[in-house]
Amino acid sequence: MIDLNEIKDPSFLKSLSKKEMKELASQIREHIISNVSQNGGHLSSNLGVVELTIALHYCFNDETDKLIFDVGHQTYTHKILTGRASQFDNLRRFNGLSGYASYEESIYDVWESGHSSTSLSAMAGFLKAKENGEDIGNVVAIIGDSSIASGMAFEALNYIGENRKSNPIIILNDNEMSISKSVGALNKALSVMRSNKLFRKIKSGFGYIIPNFIKNFFYKAYRMLKSFIQHDNIFETLGYDYFGPINGNDIGQVIRTIKRAKKVNSPCVIHVITEKGKGYKLAEEDEIGIFHNISPFDRQNGKEKVAKRLNEYTYSEIICEGLFNIRKNHRFTVINPAMILGTKMLKFTKEYKSDLLDVGIAEEHAATMAAAIAKNNQDVVLLMYSTFLQRAYDQILNDIARQNLKVIIGIDRAGIVGEDGSTHQGIYDIAMIGHMPNFKICMPKNGDEAIKLLNYAFSQKSPIAIRYPRGKDVINLSKIGDEIIDEKWEIIHHGQNGIVISYGPDLDRILKIVENNNLDVTIINARFIRPLDQEMILRIVSMDLPILLYEQVVRSGSLFNMISTYLYKNNLKVNSITSMAIDDDEIVTFGSIREVLDAYHLGDKDILEGIKKMYEN
Amino acid sequence: MIDLNEIKDPSFLKSLSKKEMKELASQIREHIISNVSQNGGHLSSNLGVVELTIALHYCFNDETDKLIFDVGHQTYTHKILTGRASQFDNLRRFNGLSGYASYEESIYDVWESGHSSTSLSAMAGFLKAKENGEDIGNVVAIIGDSSIASGMAFEALNYIGENRKSNPIIILNDNEMSISKSVGALNKALSVMRSNKLFRKIKSGFGYIIPNFIKNFFYKAYRMLKSFIQHDNIFETLGYDYFGPINGNDIGQVIRTIKRAKKVNSPCVIHVITEKGKGYKLAEEDEIGIFHNISPFDRQNGKEKVAKRLNEYTYSEIICEGLFNIRKNHRFTVINPAMILGTKMLKFTKEYKSDLLDVGIAEEHAATMAAAIAKNNQDVVLLMYSTFLQRAYDQILNDIARQNLKVIIGIDRAGIVGEDGSTHQGIYDIAMIGHMPNFKICMPKNGDEAIKLLNYAFSQKSPIAIRYPRGKDVINLSKIGDEIIDEKWEIIHHGQNGIVISYGPDLDRILKIVENNNLDVTIINARFIRPLDQEMILRIVSMDLPILLYEQVVRSGSLFNMISTYLYKNNLKVNSITSMAIDDDEIVTFGSIREVLDAYHLGDKDILEGIKKMYEN
Repeated sequence: MIDLNEIKDPSFLKSLSKKEMKELASQIREHIISNVSQNGGHLSSNLGVVELTIALHYCFNDETDKLIFDVGHQTYTHKILTGRASQFDNLRRFNGLSGYASYEESIYDVWESGHSSTSLSAMAGFLKAKENGEDIGNVVAIIGDSSIASGMAFEALNYIGENRKSNPIIILNDNEMSISKSVGALNKALSVMRSNKLFRKIKSGFGYIIPNFIKNFFYKAYRMLKSFIQHDNIFETLGYDYFGPINGNDIGQVIRTIKRAKKVNSPCVIHVITEKGKGYKLAEEDEIGIFHNISPFDRQNGKEKVAKRLNEYTYSEIICEGLFNIRKNHRFTVINPAMILGTKMLKFTKEYKSDLLDVGIAEEHAATMAAAIAKNNQDVVLLMYSTFLQRAYDQILNDIARQNLKVIIGIDRAGIVGEDGSTHQGIYDIAMIGHMPNFKICMPKNGDEAIKLLNYAFSQKSPIAIRYPRGKDVINLSKIGDEIIDEKWEIIHHGQNGIVISYGPDLDRILKIVENNNLDVTIINARFIRPLDQEMILRIVSMDLPILLYEQVVRSGSLFNMISTYLYKNNLKVNSITSMAIDDDEIVTFGSIREVLDAYHLGDKDILEGIKKMYEN
Repeated sequence: MIDLNEIKDPSFLKSLSKKEMKELASQIREHIISNVSQNGGHLSSNLGVVELTIALHYCFNDETDKLIFDVGHQTYTHKILTGRASQFDNLRRFNGLSGYASYEESIYDVWESGHSSTSLSAMAGFLKAKENGEDIGNVVAIIGDSSIASGMAFEALNYIGENRKSNPIIILNDNEMSISKSVGALNKALSVMRSNKLFRKIKSGFGYIIPNFIKNFFYKAYRMLKSFIQHDNIFETLGYDYFGPINGNDIGQVIRTIKRAKKVNSPCVIHVITEKGKGYKLAEEDEIGIFHNISPFDRQNGKEKVAKRLNEYTYSEIICEGLFNIRKNHRFTVINPAMILGTKMLKFTKEYKSDLLDVGIAEEHAATMAAAIAKNNQDVVLLMYSTFLQRAYDQILNDIARQNLKVIIGIDRAGIVGEDGSTHQGIYDIAMIGHMPNFKICMPKNGDEAIKLLNYAFSQKSPIAIRYPRGKDVINLSKIGDEIIDEKWEIIHHGQNGIVISYGPDLDRILKIVENNNLDVTIINARFIRPLDQEMILRIVSMDLPILLYEQVVRSGSLFNMISTYLYKNNLKVNSITSMAIDDDEIVTFGSIREVLDAYHLGDKDILEGIKKMYEN
């Protein structure tokens, strides 16, 4: 038995027998399951790559060799093997261990990424740095079957496959189901490769018994034979030596294959089949991705330990209900890049399967495809997390906004998202869309307003984004109707000493603070961030009071910016405006939403202070 | 002889013989060459697809069939066949014929795009609309060999290849050289397919003589045979029926192949080899892409008709010289997605070939690869047009800005670019990068300052963007040194009645207007758009004069926005600020730079008026 907490670096692996490595894998698995069940985290992918990660650290010398993990959320075993096991009780907690690779944590984390499909481009950069003299050994990228189908991964595959100067090794970690079910033709091609069991057996068979030189001879003969019988697969077409598929949960097989790949003097793809969720039965059997990224859960029954009030739903669920309700009488298409579970659209897809299109991790394609549907005068909804919307800036600008096409974008996870990861904070969407022509942007203060804004969006003829947070609200689903809400702001509290402007569920927090402290201020629900309610702004100006603007987004491009532009443009003078928002230069960390807000001076006590300051003026 | 100007729609093609179609092709070619030589435009690609476009309009009924051209700049023949021949004397002129597909011009233009690789996603959208009941016949996309290698095209290929409900036809227009030389492994794979001449000959041979039923029998037999001898190519792997390669300049061959493809009940790729520049010898022989997108030129010798002052160079050339100068003593990498000619880097690539990487139309990959090189403490420059930078928003944000990596972005074609096209205006880059952490953004007022800012960028440790316009400046190249310029603003004219703030070569225009009209205003060169020169802002505030801010970008996220945020944040009051910039809701058109500026109230007379208004205050 190895004490995981005593591991300093992966060098100890070299002295382990295969049997000891297997035992180590069991220990690591237990460590991951027990910690993720308590803290939440990415479970299934991490359980799948335990043996693979052990084999990688066994085969590569991590000081000069570079292991680049695509989307750092599959690095739990890597973290344990590089001396971070003891920090897992603070996994994803504020100031704790990140759920992703992190430069701050370890020199073994050579590439940070929260969004998928960047590892191969990073690999290309590392290869170039090596060519220019940097002391780098093997460059290895570990990428999943869904991530590799994303556009930018293909761009890099295409590049590396042509620049055949060295021996980069791409580990294609194929678990036949990434965030949600893998989609696309490439996935079908992978299926064909996966089913090639005859070759898998032959290859895994002759590893054990025969001496090396004979093995190598046979191996060459096998590859010649294969090239006659089997057609080139897509990786071979693109210039790679292809190894596989092999069983990624068999440490010995992985090690043998990596050793062969290291001898080849050209880019390689090792196609590794891993079992997602391996070692935790409920995750193994999970077909829809519940255990992909989960909150703390009960190990016995797999249920998330979340207190739920009566009729309480996430905003994602509420939007799904709203779409479901509209769909009953009106056909439209929903496009959803690899996020059907995350955006809680399971109910919709069960009933209207052919109209909810999961296009895989392909945000650029998703946005332009949505535009083309709208161009044909059909309604279309694009559902994406705020953070992933960033992948489609140009397509949203050129194909949706400039063409003034009615695409309704549901921006999920807008604002601070909490534990998930620093890159996943939804703080850039307003800055990103705010300057695009024709776009309206709104955010509901509660579940009821979410439904009304959604109904409103369908009544429009131009692009509109509805952003909603990770949080929850109580709503009576049986009463969902087709009422709409227009572009006006509303005063939700009257007072004489200042004006607080905000949007979204933050208004509820602000209202409570104001009421609990008997503060005499006006609170305005700016539910439309764009267009501005000019009438209300004139009213605000005429009140001649200090103004406080509260937003969970970066300051540049925020509502505060839009209002100040409007004031200067119309030469309107106000008493004062204070912006509470995230400074552009901040890198927002992870932790509970409350902790993160506090850390960036956006917590409840900061709101109270901000309002009190207006009193002093 | 057909009078091209009399063509109303493509229906007349149906009654033409093959011989007449060939004559028509010659006429169209002549029309294109003579007009482009006078007005400038995309020559090579348009000359390549004359026969292909005739064949497409012959085979498809354009009222319900949809021809989707990838990057609308290859649509000149299409425009002629759909009734726009007579407008070619106003090609790319203000209020004239667009150089791209345009909804306003014709119902036959079913998809507008200025950026490459969107056609297949658009195709997917059209197919879905058809499935939902829209009256659409065949959906056909015409896409080049470089465009199809871009990430988002792959995402769509992957999607369409799996959703095999109908018969979309992808015409892969392979001219073996797109904007610049095609790169990447896919291009190598295409070469293999291209060289498959035996099959080309067999196929083209038996079209003429034998009756249809025998031909179809032979065709099936041929395809069976082929599947034994030839390995699956990449399109077949992805689920497409592959036809080709065929000679795209042979109308008959193209028509026969399209007819076959129409009978297949699954997605098809027709691989068409066309000769770029065909019919204009200098363009046929052009290996570096001079005739890709050219200004008015002399038909005899192919030289651009541009008056050039002594020592006058484009900003692209000046930046190239600056880079060349630095490279002499200091090794670094330049990454340039498919724009080596456009960004005038030929001189650099001749001398330092291995350090100038053309990664193809792969902006996302380019940005992340640059980040990874910088992560290894090596200097790296990313050269891109402002408009194409939009394709890499997320990668610049997450992989460069958030990681605070020293990537120097040379943003070429910043500001109004003139004739090229509405989508190519460089007006979003500041709004896009301005809110990203750690980024500095600057713009030189002249060639000399460009060199100094570039030197400065190399002296830094964090990401920095240098934006420069399409224009030219006079500079003595032999005197290029290693002087740097710091982050301070400068006063370039002193006056008492107002303050004009701007950046870039616009300052020269403003200075001339001020001098010619004896205006008593201060002019400030805000060469760093970010960070702001806070000291200078305090000085400006203390002057208590009206302020005019002039910028060729969208107003949201502009310098004006940054300054107003700063003023409010620090509770600084100014006399007044007027922003001259592009309204967020404007779709900026094409035309000469002067005409475009006038149209958006950014012309010289508008500047004069703006300054005079300050006098009235």
